Amino acid sequence: MTDSATQGELQRLRDSIDNIDAALIHLLAERFKCTQQVGALKAKAGMPPADPTREGAQIARLRKLAETAKLDPEFAEKFLNFIVTEVIRHHMAHRDGLKK
Amino acid sequence: MTDSATQGELQRLRDSIDNIDAALIHLLAERFKCTQQVGALKAKAGMPPADPTREGAQIARLRKLAETAKLDPEFAEKFLNFIVTEVIRHHMAHRDGLKK
Repeated sequence: MTDSATQGELQRLRDSIDNIDAALIHLLAERFKCTQQVGALKAKAGMPPADPTREGAQIARLRKLAETAKLDPEFAEKFLNFIVTEVIRHHMAHRDGLKK
Repeated sequence: MTDSATQGELQRLRDSIDNIDAALIHLLAERFKCTQQVGALKAKAGMPPADPTREGAQIARLRKLAETAKLDPEFAEKFLNFIVTEVIRHHMAHRDGLKK
């Protein structure tokens, strides 16, 4: 491929990546709206922020979905852990806020 | 709220989270298809796996999108770094594969 053909192809792929990233950001915003409501419910009911049984089920489900979508299941699990860590940080901040 | 009302509301929110997670996994699978093609192009053209200028532009753009979507821009940046780290790991593995 010539340099300009490579650059054109790279730009085409980067435009798709940018579109996908915008969709990911908007879905993550929506997900955090849900988990913020979960956090408020849990804090009000005196439930602990983390729920290992629920998290185990989520990991198993996402690994299976990842396989079907031809995404590395290890990455799917790392991804969920990354998100859940952030969510628990929010829940704890919310709970500490209620205690004040 | 009664216990069963709390449980019902929690289930409703978790169902939404599960739907969003399925969408995220499928978008991530599609994103990795793009970055794998980028990796192959870069390896063929002898370009380095990381591209700090492109990454800087991506971070600035995603932080702005996050603000509009009411998502913590810090989290959006951490998220992109998490993904890019994985992508660069893939690119390097691909490049090392070509060298063999």
